[in-house]
Amino acid sequence: MQRILSTQLSAHVGETVRIAGWIHRRRLLKSVAFLILRDAAGLTQIVVSEKAARAQLEALPEETTVAVVGTVTAEPSAPGGVEITSPVIEALTDPAEPAPFDLYRPDLRASLPAMLDHAPVALRHPKLAAVHRISAAAVGGFRTALEAMSFVEIHTPKIVGTATESGANVFKLDYFGRPAYLAQSPQLYKQMMVGVFERVYEVGPVFRAEPSDTARHLASYTSLDAEMGFIEDHRDVIAACHATVGGMLAGIRASAGPSLELLDVTMPALTEKPVVVHFADVLEMISRATGQDVTAEPDLAPAHERWIGEWALREHGSDFVFVEGYPTAHRAFYTHPDPERPGYSRAIDLIFRGLELVSGGQRLHRHADYVRALTARGESDLSAYSGYLDAMRYGMPPHGGFAFGLERFMARLLDVPNVRQVTLFPRDLHRLSP
Amino acid sequence: MQRILSTQLSAHVGETVRIAGWIHRRRLLKSVAFLILRDAAGLTQIVVSEKAARAQLEALPEETTVAVVGTVTAEPSAPGGVEITSPVIEALTDPAEPAPFDLYRPDLRASLPAMLDHAPVALRHPKLAAVHRISAAAVGGFRTALEAMSFVEIHTPKIVGTATESGANVFKLDYFGRPAYLAQSPQLYKQMMVGVFERVYEVGPVFRAEPSDTARHLASYTSLDAEMGFIEDHRDVIAACHATVGGMLAGIRASAGPSLELLDVTMPALTEKPVVVHFADVLEMISRATGQDVTAEPDLAPAHERWIGEWALREHGSDFVFVEGYPTAHRAFYTHPDPERPGYSRAIDLIFRGLELVSGGQRLHRHADYVRALTARGESDLSAYSGYLDAMRYGMPPHGGFAFGLERFMARLLDVPNVRQVTLFPRDLHRLSP
Repeated sequence: MQRILSTQLSAHVGETVRIAGWIHRRRLLKSVAFLILRDAAGLTQIVVSEKAARAQLEALPEETTVAVVGTVTAEPSAPGGVEITSPVIEALTDPAEPAPFDLYRPDLRASLPAMLDHAPVALRHPKLAAVHRISAAAVGGFRTALEAMSFVEIHTPKIVGTATESGANVFKLDYFGRPAYLAQSPQLYKQMMVGVFERVYEVGPVFRAEPSDTARHLASYTSLDAEMGFIEDHRDVIAACHATVGGMLAGIRASAGPSLELLDVTMPALTEKPVVVHFADVLEMISRATGQDVTAEPDLAPAHERWIGEWALREHGSDFVFVEGYPTAHRAFYTHPDPERPGYSRAIDLIFRGLELVSGGQRLHRHADYVRALTARGESDLSAYSGYLDAMRYGMPPHGGFAFGLERFMARLLDVPNVRQVTLFPRDLHRLSP
Repeated sequence: MQRILSTQLSAHVGETVRIAGWIHRRRLLKSVAFLILRDAAGLTQIVVSEKAARAQLEALPEETTVAVVGTVTAEPSAPGGVEITSPVIEALTDPAEPAPFDLYRPDLRASLPAMLDHAPVALRHPKLAAVHRISAAAVGGFRTALEAMSFVEIHTPKIVGTATESGANVFKLDYFGRPAYLAQSPQLYKQMMVGVFERVYEVGPVFRAEPSDTARHLASYTSLDAEMGFIEDHRDVIAACHATVGGMLAGIRASAGPSLELLDVTMPALTEKPVVVHFADVLEMISRATGQDVTAEPDLAPAHERWIGEWALREHGSDFVFVEGYPTAHRAFYTHPDPERPGYSRAIDLIFRGLELVSGGQRLHRHADYVRALTARGESDLSAYSGYLDAMRYGMPPHGGFAFGLERFMARLLDVPNVRQVTLFPRDLHRLSP
């Protein structure tokens, strides 16, 4: 008999069906026993009144996988309005050992380290699984939005020969006897690929050997990257990024509704048009509002990001605000300066609920500008950049792009303090398993 | 003025438009000059008859990026049936340096190493770009097919603490002073995640430190992985894999039509139902056909794969054939044996045009079976598998899955001899850049 899922039961009242899943919970009352079965779609209540079946159930601890054949019976008080009666239970594995957590409780009562140590089991809790369903829906929405704008998916190398972006925080490996490094981002490759497809995106792991033991640092995370050519300036990047974030929120709403409900997620407000404010104006507004002159600051401090986030919500009803024009000196070498405002650039950040979510902007596209920028930053040996510089040497369009970490987005969306709470199997300074 | 793409021109005959792209080719005739512009969508012919514009064009070498404002004029002999007349040309970069290849020729005349050395430029050739458009469409189809079957996308760690799958061919790295390894596959993680979502998939890089310098070895490739729970046996895996391959071919047809045409690709024949043959029957058929007894062989040699590939095409009109029942001893420790045929397993391979494309099958799901299998293979310290074994300890359903390399699929689909020809920036024994 073909197995059906818990959510399909209500269409089969009166029929004999086969369901399968995990024993989520047993309630062994005096006169009757209940088996709550958990499958990918949800929970099913199974009423066990027959003696032999009850004896069998008593020997099958929570988390054991079973298949159940029984009759679908209407029962308004049961999940989905139906339950299974007259069940025949078949264990699909040996009885499960006692799990380290009670997965049937509404919330998983365990410390974060304990959850991470036992991630393969902890993630089965419906609320933890829901986090990663939302995450998958967000990535799906990211792709759908970009594909609709003719971006082409690429897969770029994760092992690179030179640590080009920032020498300090790279993982070094032995590459057939030579030193090599794990890529910190697909930045240089996605720019090169603008020369091929104009618009490209990548979803993939990036690696940061940051020896920081904080709630927001991971040694590896999933980077969502996009890059586009033939732009006028960074405002085109903002428009594409805004549409992409909109696509992600739409993807989540469309594919992860039950998970949003389970976690009681307040979806963020995204205005139809992006809210954009210049870096200098942010500092000026803060100075005016607080009476403390911060206009000479070279970057936005976390408190500034919070302030502008609150401002955007208050003034524009938006949980997102783009800040444009960060000082060139504080951004990466490939940042395009603002030709009309010396010292300022066409770099952007997207602040989501007071926290930097996306970095991006327009990049340099002239070979000579790259040579100048790299030399000015003290790079003496440009051969490390040869493939990248070649792309610029042989004709590149004005281009720009953006990148953000999936885990950071998810943590902010779900309002959880630690990125490890939204990562399947996090890697950090101390953690290398499971 | 909003830029439009080459493929949109025919809807704007008589209008003044703005297009942009790369100077693909200049033809400077005596009375008139032609500028062939290449953008993401294709080629546009621009007629330059005015003197100043011609002088400008003469100073702009091929590959320089330009924007052109001009009149769309019907011209049956031009690409798309239209050309641009009375153009005003604006260079978007400095004039390009002479490229290492003539990108305007119908085929890129260069050795493979030269192409790979200059990948950022070589990939701009329409035929090379087409390869990667097809590749992106294949991955899109892979996801669409699996999402339709309720598979959930996951992102698993690429840095692992122990080299669990095969000790020899792993890349070792320095992980904050500790040894760590690059993941050879998401196998163990996708199995653990079956315990959470029942059905999962991942598209991501895998790493193999194989010191083999052949046309089919890469040090890193894009692995397409899927795993599913609550199966009856490996036949459910075959059905899902067959549907997935069908989805990939459909994705390619739907999204990469022009690229298929440009490369003159013969799309493979996939029968409605999968063609499945048992390992022992393959060897028996070959023995009968060739008069040479190969029935005692422990695995299929490349010649056997070619033979059964030809057989499937001849007998079933299929470019794909599933082989089931490989001897257990020659497959990974997690392989589920065939309970009815001692020595044989529920492992499968999918042979595509005579070459192994996919490996998969049903996996063990009982904790005790894992302990037995690992111990039998000489694993003395099972703590390296603790997260994985925990998943099995606390109740796993019968499950199985499949995996294949994107580059291998593409090489076979396009009938090219070297996987490097279908990889953007390949990594191998010798190559670490660009």
